[in-house]
Amino acid sequence: MPENNSQAEHVVGVDVGGTKILGGVFDSGLRCVAKAKTSTKPQRGIQAVVERIACCVRDAVDEADLGLQHVRAVGVGAPGGVDVETGQVIFAPNLDWQNVPLKRELEAHLGLPVFIDNDCNLAMLGVYTAELKSKARHVVGIFIGTGIGSGLIFDGELYTGAHHIAGEIGHMVLVPDGPKCGCGKKGCFEAVASRNAMFQKIQSAVKDGQKTILTEMLGDELRDLRSGDLRKAIRRGDKFVADVVKEAAEYTGLAVANVINLLNPEVVVLGGGVIEALEEDMLGIITKIIQDYVMPGSFGETVIMASKLGDDAGITGAAVLARKQSK
Amino acid sequence: MPENNSQAEHVVGVDVGGTKILGGVFDSGLRCVAKAKTSTKPQRGIQAVVERIACCVRDAVDEADLGLQHVRAVGVGAPGGVDVETGQVIFAPNLDWQNVPLKRELEAHLGLPVFIDNDCNLAMLGVYTAELKSKARHVVGIFIGTGIGSGLIFDGELYTGAHHIAGEIGHMVLVPDGPKCGCGKKGCFEAVASRNAMFQKIQSAVKDGQKTILTEMLGDELRDLRSGDLRKAIRRGDKFVADVVKEAAEYTGLAVANVINLLNPEVVVLGGGVIEALEEDMLGIITKIIQDYVMPGSFGETVIMASKLGDDAGITGAAVLARKQSK
Repeated sequence: MPENNSQAEHVVGVDVGGTKILGGVFDSGLRCVAKAKTSTKPQRGIQAVVERIACCVRDAVDEADLGLQHVRAVGVGAPGGVDVETGQVIFAPNLDWQNVPLKRELEAHLGLPVFIDNDCNLAMLGVYTAELKSKARHVVGIFIGTGIGSGLIFDGELYTGAHHIAGEIGHMVLVPDGPKCGCGKKGCFEAVASRNAMFQKIQSAVKDGQKTILTEMLGDELRDLRSGDLRKAIRRGDKFVADVVKEAAEYTGLAVANVINLLNPEVVVLGGGVIEALEEDMLGIITKIIQDYVMPGSFGETVIMASKLGDDAGITGAAVLARKQSK
Repeated sequence: MPENNSQAEHVVGVDVGGTKILGGVFDSGLRCVAKAKTSTKPQRGIQAVVERIACCVRDAVDEADLGLQHVRAVGVGAPGGVDVETGQVIFAPNLDWQNVPLKRELEAHLGLPVFIDNDCNLAMLGVYTAELKSKARHVVGIFIGTGIGSGLIFDGELYTGAHHIAGEIGHMVLVPDGPKCGCGKKGCFEAVASRNAMFQKIQSAVKDGQKTILTEMLGDELRDLRSGDLRKAIRRGDKFVADVVKEAAEYTGLAVANVINLLNPEVVVLGGGVIEALEEDMLGIITKIIQDYVMPGSFGETVIMASKLGDDAGITGAAVLARKQSK
């Protein structure tokens, strides 16, 4: 491991997704002082992506009017299974990666200590530290975007299970024999409530002749459809889109209720791009379903909230990791 | 709290169910040296049940050729929500109890320190301590009987959530709009895979004219139907009963897979009366479904096992509690 700039105050947090890489520079008070963003372009291969991550770190540091010598360490969230000891990404289907020594590669590029973990674990850590001020004991974070993942805090510490792969709430089966999921099974939470699930439902209905304002907005192919477009369509009175979002919210409520019944957390935080864009449309429905499905005695005691960090949860958690590990 | 017989080596563990009370005397090596059993008779009221519990403790101690002066403490598992600090049973629907100061009442009857907890938590503690020798770090215990409950061990300690009510896996919704559950919701795990769920399915099919060996065994009313009768019917080639048990096992596999994906435990232990009676018929199917539904990478690493403690899991865990708390 490279020597860290032990006097340096700043750390960099990076969130690597299948589509984009987001980097942020954080000061000693965990305030984000600068950000940079780039596309991931996984099709260009592993080396290219590693270089793009390194470049994103440099850009963010430059944006903060700092140099790498002012950075103590870098934390990176990867979308998949991670061996935190060796710093390898074991598998990341969205990047088409297997056994990539990301820590070693990035340290060679940057000359800084690098620490990696799963992106949902880090998003949870970010929300827990920056938003909840580490105050609740048991917290479940559910992040709904292209896919769905979760992070777990038990007794104030990140819980990652026996093999560091806990949190796959997206593959909780909610509808036996339901819609096919990317994982190969049917009826997973992710297959009925993620952005992808909603988009596929809309696209297939449009093909079957369903009318929606979305085609006026984006054309019949619905190119570049985003969660924010669903919000706009609902605001313009599109009942069909409202129903699709309502159904996703209902399944989300069911999944959250299942988790509350099992784990009795103090707080459930909902985050990710879908919640960020559609909080107003979804949170009320989610809360209603939770109320209907949790055991008496446990609801009212579990706080349900939407994260205010939005897309910054991942980089914030990555910064927390970098700070913790480089102490 | 009464003074404990601090020199005494033995503890008593009691498991209070809606139907029966089981008590066991355990020596310093956590060996059960004597047991006693009595019916609960909750319809006689709280005081009568408390007296029956005390009587069961005395009977077990007498059976061991000991006196109460040889007992250091008593642990009691209650079927419901428990305030472990005050020793109150907050709610226990099967007993029709609310806010019963069980610890105080039993201590007055026995003159011994009494410690109480939820029955599934204690069954988990018993299995973890006596059967797994406290060796695995993260364990989920699922107990299938009249109802379905679970106990959770994280980092070697019992996890009970923010308000000591975690583990309600029986009310994980597996089939939206499925069969009605005792809790008032629909499609809970308990409503499709518990003993009650299987019995109701069989009884309603028999009413509709379904032929089964069970009616030859027990009469058309199927009085006194037990899990063991299902096993006997399957052994005698009853395809209908085999299908009912198979379906319950499939739902159980789905619930276990959901929990593995979320919590990535080292071990999942299945216990309770249904598993004890039908292990041979269910465990293979459960394991197959888990294999189909867990995320690649996590199966093969999680050990699935049936508890050998059977009905003694609860009293063993209650004895562990008594020993821990009276140290």
